[in-house]
Amino acid sequence: GVKDPKTVSLIGAPFQYGQPKEGVDKGCQAIRDAGLASTVTELGWRFDDRGDAEVFRPTSSDPQGTVGGKHGYSVCKTNESIHNKVYGAANDGNFVLTVGGDHSVAMGSIAGVLRARPNVGVLWVDAHADINLPSSSPSGNVHGMPVSFLMRMLQPGDVPGSEWLKDVPILTPENLVYVGLRDVDPFERKAIRDNNLKAFTMFEVDKYGIGKVMEMALDHLAGKQARPVHMSYDIDAVDPSIAPSTGTTVKGGLNYREAHFVAEYAADSGLLGSMDLVEVNPSIGAAADSNQPAQTVEFGHELLGSALGRAIL
Amino acid sequence: GVKDPKTVSLIGAPFQYGQPKEGVDKGCQAIRDAGLASTVTELGWRFDDRGDAEVFRPTSSDPQGTVGGKHGYSVCKTNESIHNKVYGAANDGNFVLTVGGDHSVAMGSIAGVLRARPNVGVLWVDAHADINLPSSSPSGNVHGMPVSFLMRMLQPGDVPGSEWLKDVPILTPENLVYVGLRDVDPFERKAIRDNNLKAFTMFEVDKYGIGKVMEMALDHLAGKQARPVHMSYDIDAVDPSIAPSTGTTVKGGLNYREAHFVAEYAADSGLLGSMDLVEVNPSIGAAADSNQPAQTVEFGHELLGSALGRAIL
Amino acid sequence: GVKDPKTVSLIGAPFQYGQPKEGVDKGCQAIRDAGLASTVTELGWRFDDRGDAEVFRPTSSDPQGTVGGKHGYSVCKTNESIHNKVYGAANDGNFVLTVGGDHSVAMGSIAGVLRARPNVGVLWVDAHADINLPSSSPSGNVHGMPVSFLMRMLQPGDVPGSEWLKDVPILTPENLVYVGLRDVDPFERKAIRDNNLKAFTMFEVDKYGIGKVMEMALDHLAGKQARPVHMSYDIDAVDPSIAPSTGTTVKGGLNYREAHFVAEYAADSGLLGSMDLVEVNPSIGAAADSNQPAQTVEFGHELLGSALGRAIL
Ligand SMILES: [Mn+2]
Ligand SMILES: [Mn+2]
Ligand SMILES: [Mn+2]
Ligand SMILES: [Mn+2]
Ligand SMILES: [Mn+2]
Ligand SMILES: [Mn+2]
Repeated sequence: GVKDPKTVSLIGAPFQYGQPKEGVDKGCQAIRDAGLASTVTELGWRFDDRGDAEVFRPTSSDPQGTVGGKHGYSVCKTNESIHNKVYGAANDGNFVLTVGGDHSVAMGSIAGVLRARPNVGVLWVDAHADINLPSSSPSGNVHGMPVSFLMRMLQPGDVPGSEWLKDVPILTPENLVYVGLRDVDPFERKAIRDNNLKAFTMFEVDKYGIGKVMEMALDHLAGKQARPVHMSYDIDAVDPSIAPSTGTTVKGGLNYREAHFVAEYAADSGLLGSMDLVEVNPSIGAAADSNQPAQTVEFGHELLGSALGRAIL
Repeated sequence: GVKDPKTVSLIGAPFQYGQPKEGVDKGCQAIRDAGLASTVTELGWRFDDRGDAEVFRPTSSDPQGTVGGKHGYSVCKTNESIHNKVYGAANDGNFVLTVGGDHSVAMGSIAGVLRARPNVGVLWVDAHADINLPSSSPSGNVHGMPVSFLMRMLQPGDVPGSEWLKDVPILTPENLVYVGLRDVDPFERKAIRDNNLKAFTMFEVDKYGIGKVMEMALDHLAGKQARPVHMSYDIDAVDPSIAPSTGTTVKGGLNYREAHFVAEYAADSGLLGSMDLVEVNPSIGAAADSNQPAQTVEFGHELLGSALGRAIL
Repeated sequence: GVKDPKTVSLIGAPFQYGQPKEGVDKGCQAIRDAGLASTVTELGWRFDDRGDAEVFRPTSSDPQGTVGGKHGYSVCKTNESIHNKVYGAANDGNFVLTVGGDHSVAMGSIAGVLRARPNVGVLWVDAHADINLPSSSPSGNVHGMPVSFLMRMLQPGDVPGSEWLKDVPILTPENLVYVGLRDVDPFERKAIRDNNLKAFTMFEVDKYGIGKVMEMALDHLAGKQARPVHMSYDIDAVDPSIAPSTGTTVKGGLNYREAHFVAEYAADSGLLGSMDLVEVNPSIGAAADSNQPAQTVEFGHELLGSALGRAIL
């Protein structure tokens, strides 16, 4: 999917209203400030920063709809903006890198990629499945629901502001693979089973090793024929000892080497054409250890290098 | 072996005289206090706390016998009590969970299971082989000898108080598998070789990965036909960075994910019918870091959840 | 290659001028002081400490040559001395253990082994490939160049003091295997490719697991016929969390168990006849944590035990 001259288009998605914790909107600027432009160009890409998507902050006059979901209108309108920017960059043949923000922004980024590259396969790297519904979610936070929007478990307009999704190709269940799951709600477990979704949880990572898991994951998406792959990387897939500054940590995550391996392996496939990096929250963790935000930001920055082709040999 | 309605019978084994460190007798109550009853019922089991086995504290009038072994009479009489309680619960068709106490309590728990389920296979998860004799043990601590009693390397009555073992089926060498060994005495090494015991040390865990090791371990016990499996889980199998509050730590243990994987894999086999969790000692480690006892207790509690069927998907 | 009575000959190589940091010359004595002699004899070997090689400190009158390389004359003359001592011990049929010092000392140790055992295969365990040239090296430090000398990418005498290499068999590319690489310069990457060198980086360790990597590495060296193997173990192959006191740490290294597994697997092959342990620098790390130097020295000491046959069973 990526055309010459190989170009990374960055879309900032400084959005926080898919979850309750302050600071996750600062993730994209922190990664810019860590030197993303230099990293991208040193790896042989052109760097095309397309700036931040427009954020629609929640207001008291937002339409509420009937199905629920906290700040649903804010989430869906902001994602319309993200979707437009991502669609443009994907249509230009670039590698589209969306940096959040919380994981609700993957609704827009993947929607944008789906419009430009309808046969895209999605590699969802996350401790969580993010396939809840407003009616099933214990928290109501929409960062736990983007997959449900993309798969049309929610119809366009069910949540006010999401009407634009009607023009976006549906993400079909066989075109999604999970890697790293370890905290899944009962409803999500049923959704994964009912939709026959391919999921490599941490149990499978331990059972087979990360090398075999990534081989099986990519083989599922692109074993029969080459196709563009989008990687949606939630930093909480990584163990909290490596990436502590994120909103919903879960023990037992990918270790430092595995986290990079996932990105390197995806890059090495030659199919990766777009990516999200989300849930880096520089406002979390400093109280426990002042180094945690910088450690997490730098780790996220490193991961982007691995996904963009940095390799040992 | 587990009948409907699926029930976990808990046997507390607050016994410390198989080794010299104070506090290991508090392990079972600490895990009760951490919320074991709720965990068990949330996982879909009935919870049947059968209380603590009777402890025979060492006295100056205990018969000493001739073969040695510190506090041998106390160990063997207490294990007669454990054995009786475990036998009762196993005979009722329940999942029998014995929480120690030191690892000498596995003499009674496995004896009780052997009487009710003579074809049981034993998965021994431990840094140590616990197959010493009083005559070979550098320390004389009987928590390093339960396998020797169960395999009749010691005859009933050799150590006073162990006469009751004469009515217990022998644990034959092919019915035991070790996982996690990394500190084995010269005598034990010879016993493992002479008895042709199946042992997956940490070398094999590194060589094959924990997934393949567990597959081979269960295949050895139950590859030809389904049978009940008992897992005797010494918390010191786990790396001291994860479970520091235990009496005989050894570097290079199972990591957090592997430790859970072992329990999850055993549960997933559908064969697990009984379990010991031993050597959690809440009196150890607080001086180095006040959080260590609670961390270790909570980890042991989590492990029980994994063994009782908690799974990601 | 090792004759009865099985003897370990220790050659100290207290050399620091292959790199700029003070203290790496103290590594060998620190490991002696940690109890190496007892460890060796407890593992069933005779211990033959042949003392330290002569060190030629850099002087203002050292010939400089034309190709460059910092302290080249000092490095090459010291390595002539190391080479002589190692050759003598290897010729006596002993296991030759060279403890550095920085990794430039492998020029002499491997040269000495090559003269006595021309068919030796070399297992290079390192974060770095150490295959730079003075003209390509960003730093000019010769500890990053020993492979280039041994493979004659530099001719004897190119760097003054290295004339003695003319009598040493060439290390041919098929007789070297790397394990653990994760920080490789562009020139080195090209050298590895152009020479078709077998390299298992940390990517392959994650992809295949350390067990399979070591199997493939030894199979490459000795799959067709038994031959002596030399292991050159740079402590920076190990993760900095395990071995912090070394000059050029790189994140994402071998973990505690993998580091030992590499040494145990090499020992278990029955082919290991010589070894270097280098880059332990007890002067590094104490400021961050006073325990780091002792931790690193003890870990290096432990590794030698694993390489000399210490095993769990
Ligand atoms: Mn997520
Ligand atoms: Mn998540
Ligand atoms: Mn034990
Ligand atoms: Mn133990
Ligand atoms: Mn080196
Ligand atoms: Mn190195």
